Formats: sequence, C-alpha cells, structure tokens
Amino acid sequence: MNTYAMGLYGLGVMGRSLALNFIRRGIPTAVYSKAEGERTAFAAAHPAGQWTVCESPAELVSALARPRVVFLMITAGAPVDQVLEELLGLLEPGDVVIDGGNSHYQDTIRRCERAAKEGVEFLGVGVSGGEKGALEGPCLMVGGSSKGWERCRESLEAIAARAPDGGLCCGYVGPGGAGHYVKMVHNGIEYAVMQQLADVYGFMRDGMGLSASAMAEVFEGWRTGPLASYLVDITAAVLRKEEDGAPLVDRVLDVARQKGTGCWSVVEAAERGVYVPCIDEALFTRYHSQRRGDRQKCAQKLPCTAEPLDPSLTAPELEQALYAAILCAYVQGLELIGEASRALGWDVDLASVVELWRGGCIIRSVLLERLASALREGAEPMVLASSLREPLSQAEPCLRRTVLAGAARGIPLPALGAALLYYDQSRTARMSVNLVQALRDCFGAHTYERIDRPGTFHTEWES
Amino acid sequence: MNTYAMGLYGLGVMGRSLALNFIRRGIPTAVYSKAEGERTAFAAAHPAGQWTVCESPAELVSALARPRVVFLMITAGAPVDQVLEELLGLLEPGDVVIDGGNSHYQDTIRRCERAAKEGVEFLGVGVSGGEKGALEGPCLMVGGSSKGWERCRESLEAIAARAPDGGLCCGYVGPGGAGHYVKMVHNGIEYAVMQQLADVYGFMRDGMGLSASAMAEVFEGWRTGPLASYLVDITAAVLRKEEDGAPLVDRVLDVARQKGTGCWSVVEAAERGVYVPCIDEALFTRYHSQRRGDRQKCAQKLPCTAEPLDPSLTAPELEQALYAAILCAYVQGLELIGEASRALGWDVDLASVVELWRGGCIIRSVLLERLASALREGAEPMVLASSLREPLSQAEPCLRRTVLAGAARGIPLPALGAALLYYDQSRTARMSVNLVQALRDCFGAHTYERIDRPGTFHTEWES
Repeated sequence: MNTYAMGLYGLGVMGRSLALNFIRRGIPTAVYSKAEGERTAFAAAHPAGQWTVCESPAELVSALARPRVVFLMITAGAPVDQVLEELLGLLEPGDVVIDGGNSHYQDTIRRCERAAKEGVEFLGVGVSGGEKGALEGPCLMVGGSSKGWERCRESLEAIAARAPDGGLCCGYVGPGGAGHYVKMVHNGIEYAVMQQLADVYGFMRDGMGLSASAMAEVFEGWRTGPLASYLVDITAAVLRKEEDGAPLVDRVLDVARQKGTGCWSVVEAAERGVYVPCIDEALFTRYHSQRRGDRQKCAQKLPCTAEPLDPSLTAPELEQALYAAILCAYVQGLELIGEASRALGWDVDLASVVELWRGGCIIRSVLLERLASALREGAEPMVLASSLREPLSQAEPCLRRTVLAGAARGIPLPALGAALLYYDQSRTARMSVNLVQALRDCFGAHTYERIDRPGTFHTEWES
Repeated sequence: MNTYAMGLYGLGVMGRSLALNFIRRGIPTAVYSKAEGERTAFAAAHPAGQWTVCESPAELVSALARPRVVFLMITAGAPVDQVLEELLGLLEPGDVVIDGGNSHYQDTIRRCERAAKEGVEFLGVGVSGGEKGALEGPCLMVGGSSKGWERCRESLEAIAARAPDGGLCCGYVGPGGAGHYVKMVHNGIEYAVMQQLADVYGFMRDGMGLSASAMAEVFEGWRTGPLASYLVDITAAVLRKEEDGAPLVDRVLDVARQKGTGCWSVVEAAERGVYVPCIDEALFTRYHSQRRGDRQKCAQKLPCTAEPLDPSLTAPELEQALYAAILCAYVQGLELIGEASRALGWDVDLASVVELWRGGCIIRSVLLERLASALREGAEPMVLASSLREPLSQAEPCLRRTVLAGAARGIPLPALGAALLYYDQSRTARMSVNLVQALRDCFGAHTYERIDRPGTFHTEWES
C-alpha cells in the first residue's frame, strides 16, 4: 500500500488504455472502476506487474503514494461532480485530481475552485488521440492548478506522444479551464478539417466524376508535401478500403453525427464574437445531413441552374485549395483560443499549444510547424506573418476557383467556401455593414459612427 | 383608486411610448418608474386624461382594477427578477405580470414558474417596432400563461399594429418562453435580411461601381413588387439621404454592433441542431467588422485573384437574387422556431406567427403572405410548398449568378452566399459527409450507418 504513483479511476476504453500506457512506462498504477465487470476484465487481461485493481475508491486512494494523483477517465458531466465529491472526502490537501474527459471548460473552472476549497489541486486535461493514442502516446493539453501540474508532470510526460522532432506533446497551457478549452477548439478544428476533406472528396466525386480508388490515389499523393497530416493519411486509407471488390466509402450513409465539443466551440465563438466559419459550417453541415429524407425530396423538386464554369481542377490545384482552407481553419480556432485567453486571463501561449498538437492528436500535421513560427513572429492579425501570408497568397487562386466551380454546379463546399469567405472578409478594407448601421439607426435610433470624425451620431434618415 | 386597467412599470423610451399608446386607445393607465426624473417628465409632458403617475410600486398596484395587469418595460436581465419579486409581494392570485423586454426565453420559462407559485399569471411578450411601433402600434408576440393572456388580451389587442388586411398583429403563440423565443428569432431574421440588403448594396457599390443615389433608385423600384417590405423601404431612404450634397451612408463607419438576440438565435440553432446560415453569417459578419484595423492591413497584403466572370447583373436580376435569399432567411428562422416548439412542447402555430409579423415589426413584408400560405399547406420541408418552391426555383439562377460574381471578385456576400449554400445543401440527395463518418469510425471507432442495410458498423479501415 501507499506505493502506487498513479490512480486511474474509470476503466472504459480510454481509461484502460491510459492505465496500460502508465504501466508500460514503469509508473506503478492502481486502477478502479465502478463497474465490477471492468475491474475483473482488467485483472484477467494483463500479466502481473506494478499495478493493482482496487475494489473501492477508498482502496484506490489508500493505495497511492503521497501526494496522491487520481486520474479520472469517466463520462463527462454529472458523474465527474459525483466522483470528485467522493474523492474530496478521501483525499488530503496537496493531493491531485485530474479530469481527462471532454468536460466543458466552465465545469472545469468550477471544479478547480471546489477542489481548492479542500486544498486539493484539480487539473482539467484534454486527451487527444483516441484509444490508440491513449495506449501509445496521447497529446495532453493540461490546464488547472499549476501546483497540481508540477506534482504529476513527470507521469504525464512519460505517457505522452512526441512530435517528429522529439518535442513532448504534453504541456501546461493555463489555469482553470484552459486545458479543456484548448481541447474543445482542437475538436472544432478537427470538425472543420474533416469537412474540408469531405468537400474536396465531394467535389471530385460529384464534379469531376472520380471513383473512390482514383481519389485514393490523389490523397496518397498528398501524404507527403504541404498537406502531410494524420487526417489526409486516413482519408487515403478510407478511400482505398474495399468490401466485396467495391469501395466501402460509397456504402456509408451520408448522415454525420456529433458529440458536443463542436457545438460548444460554435457557442463560444458566438458568445465571444470570434469569426470561425469553417468550424461553424462543419458543425451545421453535420446537423443538416440528418435531414436526409428532406434532402432527397428537394433534390427532385428544386433545380440547380449550372453556370458554365470549367470544373476540372488538377490534383495539385485541389491540393493548394485544401491547403489554404485548412490554414484558415487552424487560424480561426487559434483566434478563438486567443480571445478566450484574453477574456479569462489565462495567458495561453498559442505557439506552445500548436506545438503540443504536433503528435498524438487527430489534427497533427506538418502545417503546425508553420503556424508555430507564425505565432512566434507575433504578426497581428496572424495571417500576415510571413510564414502564412506567402503560402496563403499562393494558394488563394486555387481555393477561389474550386469554390466557384462548386457553386456554379450546385455542389455544396461548405467548409472550403467558409475559408474563402473568411479570407475575403479579412481582406475587405471597407465592408458593406455601414448600411446595416445606418438601418439600425434609422429604425431603432441605435446611433452610428463615422469614418470622418469620432463620436456617435443619430440621423432622421427618412426626413 | 382601483380603477386603472393597465399598470406600466418603466418609463424609458419604449415604456413611455407604450403607455401613451394605451392611453390613446382609451385604456386607463397608471405608470411608474424607479427614476424620479422619468415620472416627473411623464407627468409634465402629457395633458390630463385617464392616467396617473404613481410614486411607488405599491401605489401602482393599488391603483389598478382587479385582476391587476402590470406591464414591465424595463432592462432585461436581473432587474426583471428584482421587480418581479417586488410585485409578487404586492399582487394577489389571478393578477397578471407582463414582461415586454427582450428577455431570454429561458428566463421567461423560469419566471412563469416563479409567478405561478404565488398564483400570479406571467406573460413574456415580444414587442417589435421600436419607439414608433410602441407608440402607434407594435407587433406583440405573446407567450406564457394562457389564463393571463385571456385577462389582458383586450388591452394588448387595442394597442397592437394591424396587417394590411386588417388582421391583428398581436397573438398568443404558446406557453412558457414561446413569445420571447419568437421575438428572438424575429430579430435573428432581421439580422439576416439586413445583411442580405447590405450584401446587395456592397455588390452594387464595389462590383458594379454604382453611386448611393443610383442604388437608391434601384431600391425605390423594389418598394413595390415581390420585395416590398419595411426594410427595403428604409434602405431606399437611407441610400437617398444626403449631407452637404453627398450621400451620408458613405460616411458611416463599416463597423456593426449587436445586442444579444442575434447571438442567442445562433446559440439556440447550434444547440438544437438547426441550420440557419443566413442568421449565423449575419451575426458573425457584424463581429468580424469590428476588426477594422486588421482588415485594412490585410487588404494591402493579401491578394485577390479575380476570376473572369461577368459582374454586371441587372436590377431585376438582383431583385430576384435578394428575393430568394430573403425567403431562405425566413424559412431558416421558422425552422428554428419549429424545432424549439417541438422540443419544448409549445405547439406554436408557425403560420399564425408569420401572420403576426405582417404589421408593426421590422421584418414586415409582403413575402409573409406567401410564407403563411406555405405553412398552411403543410409541406415538409417547408420550401417544397408550392407557394415557395416556384418563386424560389425561378429566382435560383439569379442568386447563384450574384454569389458567383461576388466570389469571383473577392466581394464578400456572406448572407446571400449562406442562402445559396442552404439551398444547395437542402437539395443535395447525397452529401459528402459519408467521408466524415468513415473518418470518425477510422480514428475513434464511432461506427457508421450504411445506405444498403440498417444497423451500425465498425471497420478496420487501415488494414
């Protein structure tokens, strides 16, 4: 007793994988799950070693060396509050509780404060990489008590992924809910990039008439070069996969599901006033896909009057288009984190966040090196950093032509289109919303500002 | 004492105007405001009549005939809770409290329940039309206690606007927060349509090189015909307005502000999974406009490689484009109300809502007749009703060409583009999100559905 360095609470797929990862790295680990079956299965499945299965939370806590570290890998929401209360009754000041689930950052802020009242250090940690990442090396975005972080840093770093250059994909990003916030936006970017991949796939399928295997070849070619990334890798694999000699992707239902974090990102963006159209369109496109019956009815009754625009883009042109679009998606997510960090006083270093994402997580990509150096350059806005401005400027014509070709033929490219719109809105010196302000002043006396002198003004527009 | 039919609590611009409206309609009205200056000013400004200014909430309550009706026109948020508590200590079972502010519908649900505990009937009423509407006839979207509605119905109907055919623009839309929900979405649609007007204005200004007075002429031509509406009316007026011989709109700063309800609409849409891209883009475009310094910097450094597409659209073509876009904006808002009504069990009759909007409110338009008949037709989805499908189909080519022309030259048309995207997404029988589902199954074992048989499936895509 009193000898285990890590207590893993929760033995679902993710908890089990993290526990094994700790054990393999030589970190003595005590595990517990409310579900007896999971405890028995864990005990039966693994050879004896520096681990033990505990039969109660109390036993888990008393198995741990001081200061104790309990890592929760349980369902987000009310269960985390229940288990935290249970643990606070067992732990001592200086002990650490880590929540590794996809908790909402506001809950994490509250739980940090709750635990602090008992002298317990609470960490909200974003864990990315799925089952395989948890087992072999996840990306860990740590937020919450900095004291708590110092106490478990060594263990967390031991299990984390490493970037291609050997850099650790585990780091402390800020206090309170910062870790879960960064994970939420990571997922938002993941939504956006996946939809952009789907847009290009849809364009090649419906606009250019390519087969899945022809598309697999295109994506395989993109596995090296500027698009090199985990998501491009698995897109190629998915397109290559056959069943009974036919592409399996063609048999997958075009109805996408979602689980919370994409929605939270959009809600955050709306409430903080940050423009993230790529994430936004990716979320709503998933929602809209669920109206499949309606779509099929409308397809028969609503026309598309195609405009004569050449739809044939080459693979290198589409690569450029996708590159520009993905860049915009990352930038939007980072701007959202930046705004939250400012508003909540977290002082998140965005370049470090981007570097964390280089290994273990779903959105790992060679692009992140470029983003990190842009952030270190400190240009305002970020897209004007030389490492972004140049490739974006070069890729812009291809993005524009792709979006035009889709719109001309009624092929929706929601997340590519959102990137082009973001680009164009960002480079519009004089927008048209002066009319909106004039209208608001006209009907509601909301007042307006002027370009030629300071102050607020009201006009009787209709007289 | 005990003789006044209406108690108006709050004498800001809106409260004062509503009070005068009640008085002019022959409804004896007692008024009160916490601000002594507003009480004195009201008493001084108006000739004696069937009204009285009270010096305290208690005096207001005791001035009213039973069952008492107190109409709150105060700042939304905490003040409403404070005043409600104050009044609940003074009122008796059967009395009615009306909240006419822009309260969040969830607060209204809570307040209905709070008041009901004391036997008091609470109504959340959306009041549209601004100062002028409040004075001469607002559109009143009533939600909450149906008993309360019956008790004050006559007074509210007396002050409300009327549609061109004489129909009342005052009605009970549903229990709980339904009235404030409908008002929130009304404002969301208002955001969308204003941005669509701004898009067309921006296109004519930056794409076609028209002067404000040339544009005023175009909008004046649209005052009759399919676009006839309050917002087109005032757009024409705004474009016509000159200062020192030059168009005033050209001097208005292109930075748009917002106040809550647009954001709430987008948050609701995200949380309920309803695709409302026109409202969404209108909100975020206002946010993005605030980055004016960034935009001006980017304008100099980020290129736009224009595609050779003919940008000259005729006024009738732009009219058609705008018509299709505005139709889509209304449909999106109505779909949001419909989903909330289903989820919350409000049983809102959308056709009646649309009919309420025909007078007094900012989004009044001849289009609403068409929408009402579409809703009465009961087609699923709504756009397939014959009264919408035909005009939408006819206008689609113009919308597509306008959006293409904007995108080809880097002129952002966020809310027109959102309408075209909504149209295209709605008519896409087979979307590309099957790839998203396959990717999610690949990295997270989220499973997928198939087009050829029921059930959920998991595949090892990379093997």
